[in-house]
Amino acid sequence: MQWTKVLGLGLGAAAFLGLGIILGHFAIPKEATPSVSAPQDLDLQILETVMGQLNASRIREDLRELSREPHLATSPRDEDLVQLLLQRWRDPESGLDSAEAPKYEVLLSFPSQEQPNLVHVVGPTGDIIYSCRQTEENLTGEQGGPDVVQPYAAYAPPGAPQGLLVYANRGSEEDFKELQTQGIKLEGTIALTRYGGVGRVAKAVNAAKHGVAGVLVYTDPADINDGLSSPSETFPNSWYLPPSGVERGSYYEYFGDPLTPYLPAIPSSFRLGLANVSGFPPIPTQPIGFQDARDLLCNLNGTLAPATWQGALGCSYRLGPGFRPDGDFPADSQVNVSVHNRLELRNSSNVLGIIRGAVEPGEPSCHSPRPRLLLCSGCHCHCILIQPCPHHPHPSCPAHLSLFSGSLPFFLWPDRYVLYGNHRDSWVHGAVDPSSGTAVLLELSRVLGTLLKKGTWRPRRSIVFASWGAEEFGLIGSTEFTEEFFNKLQERTVAYINVDISVFANATLRVQGTPPVQSVVFSATKEIRSPGPGDLSIYDNWIRYFNRSSPVYGLVPSLGSLGAGSDYAPFIHFLGISSMDLAYTYDRSKTSARIYPTYHTAFDTFDYVDKFLDPGFSSHQAVAQTAGSVILRLSDSFFLPLNISDYSETLHNFLQAAQQDLGALLEQHSISLGPLVTAVEKFDAEAAALGGRISTLQKGSPDPLQVRMLNDQLMLLERTFLNPRAFPEERYYSHVLWAPRTGSVATFPGLSNACSRARDTAPGSEAWAEVQRQLSIVVMALEGAAATLRPVADL
Amino acid sequence: MQWTKVLGLGLGAAAFLGLGIILGHFAIPKEATPSVSAPQDLDLQILETVMGQLNASRIREDLRELSREPHLATSPRDEDLVQLLLQRWRDPESGLDSAEAPKYEVLLSFPSQEQPNLVHVVGPTGDIIYSCRQTEENLTGEQGGPDVVQPYAAYAPPGAPQGLLVYANRGSEEDFKELQTQGIKLEGTIALTRYGGVGRVAKAVNAAKHGVAGVLVYTDPADINDGLSSPSETFPNSWYLPPSGVERGSYYEYFGDPLTPYLPAIPSSFRLGLANVSGFPPIPTQPIGFQDARDLLCNLNGTLAPATWQGALGCSYRLGPGFRPDGDFPADSQVNVSVHNRLELRNSSNVLGIIRGAVEPGEPSCHSPRPRLLLCSGCHCHCILIQPCPHHPHPSCPAHLSLFSGSLPFFLWPDRYVLYGNHRDSWVHGAVDPSSGTAVLLELSRVLGTLLKKGTWRPRRSIVFASWGAEEFGLIGSTEFTEEFFNKLQERTVAYINVDISVFANATLRVQGTPPVQSVVFSATKEIRSPGPGDLSIYDNWIRYFNRSSPVYGLVPSLGSLGAGSDYAPFIHFLGISSMDLAYTYDRSKTSARIYPTYHTAFDTFDYVDKFLDPGFSSHQAVAQTAGSVILRLSDSFFLPLNISDYSETLHNFLQAAQQDLGALLEQHSISLGPLVTAVEKFDAEAAALGGRISTLQKGSPDPLQVRMLNDQLMLLERTFLNPRAFPEERYYSHVLWAPRTGSVATFPGLSNACSRARDTAPGSEAWAEVQRQLSIVVMALEGAAATLRPVADL
Repeated sequence: MQWTKVLGLGLGAAAFLGLGIILGHFAIPKEATPSVSAPQDLDLQILETVMGQLNASRIREDLRELSREPHLATSPRDEDLVQLLLQRWRDPESGLDSAEAPKYEVLLSFPSQEQPNLVHVVGPTGDIIYSCRQTEENLTGEQGGPDVVQPYAAYAPPGAPQGLLVYANRGSEEDFKELQTQGIKLEGTIALTRYGGVGRVAKAVNAAKHGVAGVLVYTDPADINDGLSSPSETFPNSWYLPPSGVERGSYYEYFGDPLTPYLPAIPSSFRLGLANVSGFPPIPTQPIGFQDARDLLCNLNGTLAPATWQGALGCSYRLGPGFRPDGDFPADSQVNVSVHNRLELRNSSNVLGIIRGAVEPGEPSCHSPRPRLLLCSGCHCHCILIQPCPHHPHPSCPAHLSLFSGSLPFFLWPDRYVLYGNHRDSWVHGAVDPSSGTAVLLELSRVLGTLLKKGTWRPRRSIVFASWGAEEFGLIGSTEFTEEFFNKLQERTVAYINVDISVFANATLRVQGTPPVQSVVFSATKEIRSPGPGDLSIYDNWIRYFNRSSPVYGLVPSLGSLGAGSDYAPFIHFLGISSMDLAYTYDRSKTSARIYPTYHTAFDTFDYVDKFLDPGFSSHQAVAQTAGSVILRLSDSFFLPLNISDYSETLHNFLQAAQQDLGALLEQHSISLGPLVTAVEKFDAEAAALGGRISTLQKGSPDPLQVRMLNDQLMLLERTFLNPRAFPEERYYSHVLWAPRTGSVATFPGLSNACSRARDTAPGSEAWAEVQRQLSIVVMALEGAAATLRPVADL
Repeated sequence: MQWTKVLGLGLGAAAFLGLGIILGHFAIPKEATPSVSAPQDLDLQILETVMGQLNASRIREDLRELSREPHLATSPRDEDLVQLLLQRWRDPESGLDSAEAPKYEVLLSFPSQEQPNLVHVVGPTGDIIYSCRQTEENLTGEQGGPDVVQPYAAYAPPGAPQGLLVYANRGSEEDFKELQTQGIKLEGTIALTRYGGVGRVAKAVNAAKHGVAGVLVYTDPADINDGLSSPSETFPNSWYLPPSGVERGSYYEYFGDPLTPYLPAIPSSFRLGLANVSGFPPIPTQPIGFQDARDLLCNLNGTLAPATWQGALGCSYRLGPGFRPDGDFPADSQVNVSVHNRLELRNSSNVLGIIRGAVEPGEPSCHSPRPRLLLCSGCHCHCILIQPCPHHPHPSCPAHLSLFSGSLPFFLWPDRYVLYGNHRDSWVHGAVDPSSGTAVLLELSRVLGTLLKKGTWRPRRSIVFASWGAEEFGLIGSTEFTEEFFNKLQERTVAYINVDISVFANATLRVQGTPPVQSVVFSATKEIRSPGPGDLSIYDNWIRYFNRSSPVYGLVPSLGSLGAGSDYAPFIHFLGISSMDLAYTYDRSKTSARIYPTYHTAFDTFDYVDKFLDPGFSSHQAVAQTAGSVILRLSDSFFLPLNISDYSETLHNFLQAAQQDLGALLEQHSISLGPLVTAVEKFDAEAAALGGRISTLQKGSPDPLQVRMLNDQLMLLERTFLNPRAFPEERYYSHVLWAPRTGSVATFPGLSNACSRARDTAPGSEAWAEVQRQLSIVVMALEGAAATLRPVADL
């Protein structure tokens, strides 16, 4: 009976202590609190601290270090950066809880160091009469080192085709058809194409279909340099691409390690035989600079190319085949493309750093100004807030007095993850791509890590920082990660935030994402000052450049949708995790460059960023602040700041496009859009009702388990749009709203694509059956989504 | 400032009230509570009440009503039973919170009422010289009504093939090969086969491959009647099948509505054209009774059938083809099988009844005998338990006094579902199949509903009762339900409990299920008295009939694994939800019947159950108690009573079989089982560690959110074994541990099947690549599963 004595003594003490505290608090005059507010939610002071500590100069210094040397995937310098990240994330003063660098064994493609890829003009007698540059010109001293990889088309097969040159514009299917229409025999030719229009590998795939033997790809000054091309007008004298600059890139059609689709590329995993790999370019392909392209293209014979095919090389582009008799090369000269790329299995690292979500509160503290009583249980202490009974005084509550207990310690969800990532590997120095994003990543992790190590803060949800490997070869590190931890990530991830190239230019924020992330980005950007003159918020500045009229909100900044341009792709398309990609970018009225001009060249260096892209690094800082605010809001808010109702606008837009542009056609084939209309309406209603329930709870004193349940509904909504059986031929693409759309109608991709294939087939064809199947898949997804939004104890 | 005055008054009152309560409690002598136990978990009093109220007589009366008339899927009587269930589940005194009866439009198959299916012997001149019965003999007055559907093979195509009769044993591939070996020309013959060995449709598929034109199927008395076959030895004189009894059944190869694979069969869904439906029998097929089979089989000509092909029809079985010259039919007589089955789209109902999990507690009550203080907040009241600081006295707790707060109201998870179901449709009266299960379902819902309506009890988790439609045609109602609510069910369902035929016989419980359900069934059955003589628990009785030696537990009852025999199939194989099937069954030393003898015949009637299967209905009651206890434990326990560590034994058994029976072969092909060994070990370690964390928490005062997080790990483990891309050709089967195994080695099905296909192919073949792929899929699943079991804030 020993404990009863202890209890007795303690009991008295506690009762009096409690009374004392209550009376003490009560005796001190308080300001009136007109409504009962929720317990401490997102901590605005922490938010402000983080915003204030994100430092442009530190980002600049980190960028300098990150981009000091070329760090091609799996190169020694890439591994050095792995160590740098580990060291930062394990720092006792500013590091995270833990950091690791798991490796995957993946198939990459490199040019041969012994046998460089070569492009020659070969005269009628077989002698080489012209050679394209093998490397870029060493303009700043950084383009000459042994670690600067020769420009190449990764995964293009080796071979040395030789033939007459033709100009094929951007290498689209239509471009090659146009050449055929013009009567040009493509069999055995070398096609010169320019970047843009279609994806890299598509140029080679389309070319091969027409019998073309080899492909050259160059960047036209019209597309990248606003027409400028002379050395004096280009880097290092401006931000424009120098004549010798060559865009490298992956020419692999899919993403992820080519040998292990749907399996993590751990050493033991089954690997496809090379004969069974699909998605590599079918013919040798090599990129060249526009200086070389000019020498080839401006000497072409044949018909004048169409007006839209013309560029800014300072001559009239002709189609070929072959060179004109009065040009620099004999008329029957051919072009030889010698590619010696090699496939190699390499170990590529991801670096993962974690801030664990809180499991137990530290020393409790009563933030609210209301009278509180501190009560301790075995391992916890609870703040008991004394307040009047708010809405529904409980009959057994004496005199409308109520005690609110346990709010702060219970709102903890360490098994919910906020993922934030960027790739680490570059083609050369990669100051912009990807190090501008990695510098932001390091600064964010430093600021949050410092708060963590000081004991000032720990998030409610876990935060995972990721530095992905081998993205440039096809989002390989991130994809393998999603394959390895598929279930765990799908069950628990709240959102994925990607910051790859953080700054393309200084004009404005640019966001791509799925609709539920709009709200959190809006909230974050309204509170952050935009860099540059004036006193606008990032939001107010953003809306000047990208905007749309929303039926719900009026004029708002417009978000782009997520393709497969960076590591968000496996998260959104394969796992169905709400994702976003953040960057600062151009004023489109000032440049028409398809991307920043030195993209994937040896001229993407620290000085390029420091002098031209973001002097002062204020745009980098703005992106860091935006991402930081988004991370904190996602990790610390009681209710997930994902507004799922914002999906309704997308659904209505898709529906309207289907009705307007496909309705009549579908009706001819007795296919009704009625069930789709019903499903969209049902989604609207359920999403709105769920929003209403959350608002009501937010006004009261939400129970942590109720919040958890509602948050699960918010988090998992995106998952309900996944259907791994919807598009079996589209590797990894399972999201029925965001899978690639090849059909011309801007509606649900499955419907759009199926209609586009069925259009010219007979009624009752298999293609029309597929239209019906795709329509049913969308209806099922929307009905299923609506079902998950209903009150949880209904069916 | 009005509220401050109220607060002032109330505060004093509350403080004194609290003190008073504390002192009051403290002044009353309490019995010693030696250890600090968890707050009120599963309520054992409620459990005892439920066990006591489950009533054998009520089950009997419900069974009488349910089996009064034939209730073939979608028949008027089937719809009457839908209404009966709705009425029961909407009863204000004993009903559930809500009940609904959604319909699906599904493709069923029925014999023609105008043109019954016929089996004739046709003489050499074309005249009919013998006809098989069209209906069963009306022995009890229940076999003659218009609602007794003619025996037929559902989904067998119409046609009237005629040819010489052959006997093909059970119609397996080996059986037909044996006939070929014996030199029998099968082209154009009619094959007489007996039930058993392979699935129904397989008999027709195998037959058609050998050119057979039509198939007859009968039930041999050796297989079902322990050899007995005379009317005096069979029903209604015993439980054995009468000579005219015919087993009906679905001859569809897959499950779910045949026209809408992977889509819910709502009216708007895309439906396959009939030409694209796969899985129907390729040739006309008709079941017959053993009386007719005897007349055919005992007159066959040809070689004597092998010994294992002989049965109990009282003659030597010969192979044919055709009849013997000295028999009842002219030697060149043929058999004509005329099938007139029709496919029809019909509306089939599921009935779904829900007991919503608690959202807020009702009147709070302090169950524990310890001193407690009742504190009320806005909408809740909390029991504050006063207890000594248990393990880790908090430094700021005065004098080791602690207050435990908020336990009862917070352990509520209405968004977690316990599903319990059975089908409703029968072939004829279906007293055993399925009404013995439906009667148990009604009794369970009555008892729980009554407690609910009285306000005595509400579960923490939601309970869903389901009465599925059209199961007999291929688990159609349940499959369509899982297709319609795929995401919602996958996210939230704790377990699926199936009780189809609840009583096959009176000897023992029989459980099929995945390993995590073993623990909850063991706990439940140890506490319930077994029916019959003696004072054994159900568990102790069970272990006498089905047992195995577990390396962890020693001798325990053995669970069977889940195939696709009832509505659990879509839940485990398609959704990855831990499932179980419960029934009482035979003493195998007393009968070798492959199933209860009147299965799927018109003799499966109330009297059959009442007189022969379970007089007194004590086995029904035992199943109801077992299911009831399992439901309560799953819905009300703080920690889900799913012991995931029990998967380790399965994994080790599979691994051992792979090593022993495939290891050498795999080594020859340079395939290592090492990664699989590592993955299994990792799973073991993580599962054990998770179990340890739960044990530790259970001894303390678990935080409701911590419990929730751990429960999510337990609940979702089964999901991690799903891979929709593992077996693309196996419709709905995604569970990499329980997909159908056709290979002979009792290991992981993908591995076993792939090895069996690769065995006779050359090294380096595609089949060997598939072995490696399947091995990687299992390794990935196990590694992924282990990852989900790690502490949630680790990666």
